[in-house]
Amino acid sequence: MPKQVDQHERRDRIARALWRVVDRDGILQLSLRDVAAEAGISLGQLQHYFPSRAELLNFAVDLVSEQTAGRVTRRLHELGDAPHPRDVLRALLVEMLPLGPDARTASRVQAAYVLTALHDDDARSRARDGLRHGRTQVAKLVRRAIADGHITADRDPTVETNLLLALTGFTPLLEMGVLRPRDALTAIDQYLDRLFAPSPTPG
Amino acid sequence: MPKQVDQHERRDRIARALWRVVDRDGILQLSLRDVAAEAGISLGQLQHYFPSRAELLNFAVDLVSEQTAGRVTRRLHELGDAPHPRDVLRALLVEMLPLGPDARTASRVQAAYVLTALHDDDARSRARDGLRHGRTQVAKLVRRAIADGHITADRDPTVETNLLLALTGFTPLLEMGVLRPRDALTAIDQYLDRLFAPSPTPG
Repeated sequence: MPKQVDQHERRDRIARALWRVVDRDGILQLSLRDVAAEAGISLGQLQHYFPSRAELLNFAVDLVSEQTAGRVTRRLHELGDAPHPRDVLRALLVEMLPLGPDARTASRVQAAYVLTALHDDDARSRARDGLRHGRTQVAKLVRRAIADGHITADRDPTVETNLLLALTGFTPLLEMGVLRPRDALTAIDQYLDRLFAPSPTPG
Repeated sequence: MPKQVDQHERRDRIARALWRVVDRDGILQLSLRDVAAEAGISLGQLQHYFPSRAELLNFAVDLVSEQTAGRVTRRLHELGDAPHPRDVLRALLVEMLPLGPDARTASRVQAAYVLTALHDDDARSRARDGLRHGRTQVAKLVRRAIADGHITADRDPTVETNLLLALTGFTPLLEMGVLRPRDALTAIDQYLDRLFAPSPTPG
């Protein structure tokens, strides 16, 4: 192997190995040894980048956040130049649920990270920052939709933001096959229809 | 130790040790060795009851389901003889969220169980049964509330059931301190107020 090995290429290769191990064995079983084997590098080489399981998990969660942001950006791009806030919120919600292979991996890594963060202050602060960032994005959309009259002014923006985020609660039901993807999408659509409905008592 | 050791007492002692270990170290780190040490018994004695980590986790999830059912029953009892369906649903939702110490342990065990179940068919079938059972209870309440005119007949019982279950999505936000318990309760109350509101277009 050349000395000037490309750092970015190496991390990318580790990332892809990481996803294969997570898909195959589950995030709970994640070990540096398995990821090194899957990436075709030595444990020592992997530890050069990620000295511990905690650091590998930090990398995983950063990576899925980045990838989720990328998927959301692509979806928003498809919506055109001036998308309706209902469609923007729907795109965000759909990408937060385990409905496609990438979103599913992201959702699993994030769920494991929250459980880790209950007993790890550094992970807790990172998980909290990530959730707060997502919440801020949704809150901005809700406030703008109220200001623009898409959502009636009698709705409380904080409550509406929190209720929209709560819709990620479909996750375990989808993962365990209790709900089908179309059940979750139907419920989300009806929920958004109501949120964006004109006021029942105008004037 | 007497030969005729009371089986029930022994399992109860293991259960209490299990909760202390889960609270202290987290569910992801759960090991038979730590639980045996905490219960003051040998690893061999623990393995007599739970030969593997998977069986200990099955026991944990059965136990939290039982305890959650007990808490719900007590809450419903407090509501009196003919509780309003809104109050019954609220009691169910509140006990599904990590708002008190027991509900928090239950929520964490269940979250870890879902992640385990992604790569374990037996756990998957048990997790699915548990979620289906909860869903059936909520669906019955919603259908009865519609039949009794507490929820307007234009609401789809399946969609409403799914949206109510999705409110458990507050869990990671509460666990990471992004939402305070009162924020979740305010959102749940506003949600239920709308669900039980009279139809905006009567007749």
